[in-house]
Amino acid sequence: MNANPVTWESGTLTIIDQTLLPAELKYITLDTLDMVWSAIKQLQVRGAPAIGVCAAFGVLVGLKERHPATLKAARHALGIVADHLATSRPTAVNLFWALDRMRSVSVAGDSDDAPSQFLAALEREAQAIYDEDRSVCKRLGAYGAPLITDGDGVLTHCNAGGLATSGYGTALSVMFCAHEKGRRFRVYADETRPLLQGARLTTWELQRAGIDVTLICDNMAAQVMREGKINLVIVGADRVAANGDAANKIGTYGVAVLAKAHTIPFYVAIPHSTLDCALPDGDAIPIEERDGAEVSHAFGRQCAPDGIAVYNPAFDVTPARLITGFITESGIVHPPFSDRLALLAGKQGNP
Amino acid sequence: MNANPVTWESGTLTIIDQTLLPAELKYITLDTLDMVWSAIKQLQVRGAPAIGVCAAFGVLVGLKERHPATLKAARHALGIVADHLATSRPTAVNLFWALDRMRSVSVAGDSDDAPSQFLAALEREAQAIYDEDRSVCKRLGAYGAPLITDGDGVLTHCNAGGLATSGYGTALSVMFCAHEKGRRFRVYADETRPLLQGARLTTWELQRAGIDVTLICDNMAAQVMREGKINLVIVGADRVAANGDAANKIGTYGVAVLAKAHTIPFYVAIPHSTLDCALPDGDAIPIEERDGAEVSHAFGRQCAPDGIAVYNPAFDVTPARLITGFITESGIVHPPFSDRLALLAGKQGNP
Repeated sequence: MNANPVTWESGTLTIIDQTLLPAELKYITLDTLDMVWSAIKQLQVRGAPAIGVCAAFGVLVGLKERHPATLKAARHALGIVADHLATSRPTAVNLFWALDRMRSVSVAGDSDDAPSQFLAALEREAQAIYDEDRSVCKRLGAYGAPLITDGDGVLTHCNAGGLATSGYGTALSVMFCAHEKGRRFRVYADETRPLLQGARLTTWELQRAGIDVTLICDNMAAQVMREGKINLVIVGADRVAANGDAANKIGTYGVAVLAKAHTIPFYVAIPHSTLDCALPDGDAIPIEERDGAEVSHAFGRQCAPDGIAVYNPAFDVTPARLITGFITESGIVHPPFSDRLALLAGKQGNP
Repeated sequence: MNANPVTWESGTLTIIDQTLLPAELKYITLDTLDMVWSAIKQLQVRGAPAIGVCAAFGVLVGLKERHPATLKAARHALGIVADHLATSRPTAVNLFWALDRMRSVSVAGDSDDAPSQFLAALEREAQAIYDEDRSVCKRLGAYGAPLITDGDGVLTHCNAGGLATSGYGTALSVMFCAHEKGRRFRVYADETRPLLQGARLTTWELQRAGIDVTLICDNMAAQVMREGKINLVIVGADRVAANGDAANKIGTYGVAVLAKAHTIPFYVAIPHSTLDCALPDGDAIPIEERDGAEVSHAFGRQCAPDGIAVYNPAFDVTPARLITGFITESGIVHPPFSDRLALLAGKQGNP
């Protein structure tokens, strides 16, 4: 039932082309490094953990393409391939985290040796990143599930679901788990302009799971809160700084401000791998700005005058003071965040 | 340069079909009462003052269609026609206000008299509503213009422009006037899902006027505020209750909460005719809920799974406590609102 957005089988990397959902569930094979880079850039695969997993396997695709003859050539190629993949998208830290894990793979041997052992070790590492992500998401969901009680209304923004990870999701894993435990609740999904990940992906995943879900436009979140329909907000994140400032899909910060104004708890569900304790706070998180046509030409149809200026930041940063807690694979973290998050980042061996 | 969304010439009612903008500037003639009703319902004409003006002329269209033979028959037809038009949309009070003005037109005469004098009086009243709206919007703009200073960033939501009135607008009239006075500022226009009046209409009007305008998605408003780009919010309204609670396009309430959180002044620009002092507060304002397909099938393309539940309220109510002031044709009204708004409503002869 859960979506499986990234798979690696017999040396072949396959993803769901998420830009086609929900109209079409199409799997595509990424045979070249360029295809992997482009799939990440074009959001065919998206969501911080899924980007990390795809990039890890993408390293293998890139190395295979180069068929290095020696261990030395393979190590050199690894650097080039990882450097290139790192340029695909700037905000989600899981991309860099996964690439760093791949870079740190090493085997004994002379530089003239055949690279087969090294390539096998890289494949094991990528598979480990994938497997850990699945198990991490399940644990995270189990920790978060008790936050949802019968009759609750839960608001989420963008898609922090199975499609954003290796299969269970972060924010949505909490909902899947609560649903499995028989909890009855309703989810309000922000459509999440400009690319409608909420309308296209979150509703699709929740509907498939049999969870009661209602789609709203982003600008209706305040109204449903005011009407008393929301008891809880759960979102994902693409990068969380040392102090707890959390970068996530554009609009998340606004939802957090609205939740505060309506005294609604606001939770961010993340694996440890989304922590970036090298950054003191959210000001240092690079925010991707995307093509204005995503806004002015929604869904292929022009909906603004020719030549109109557009501002299209893909992410925003929610300051830690607006966050009730982080739902992680080792439990829920409440404020003060700094020391507690540092501890978790350490567990993961994060920078 | 200003748009002229509703015109009445030689007994013919013509509107701009606003659903086609900005791709196409098409004028259509409304020859029957059904066409007028449908044009309002389908948002070919929209914006509280423009709906009022269109309905006033629509009464003439409906009467002409019935060609009543006597004064008695004309009076009877007036009631039927006005009652029908009143069912087109529930939230904007200007619709009911304009229809009430038309209903209150009377001429001396026996019930068997020819209705020509009565019909002429009705036409004069509709024309007066139109003329007053133009002059009101200009005065309102002149009062509001000093709020905008050089270098300001101004955020607006939906379209309270010339297209929403008889030609100058409410919120946008303030901007047009400031621009005419040589003020240099930038407007951020929320696209305003689901029907994108901001992207399609507001940017179009501002661009035509030579005003610096940048389009954003609704969920980016919080971020541009946080970045310090916004000094002032100006929006219109569809109905304002006695205490100052203001119904306007869905999302306005959220913008008001965000403005408060960023200590940005939030102004509502309205003609007196938008006041409904018969309602003590915003709770009594009926909120139109529209077809979910506006959200799930954006721009004719399905963007959510089959059978998905959608909540699509077309308006929300911004509580008076979040409103810095009302910009009206008799000046800017600051809190406390109740007595001051009652005075203005009285000036207009409003209920």
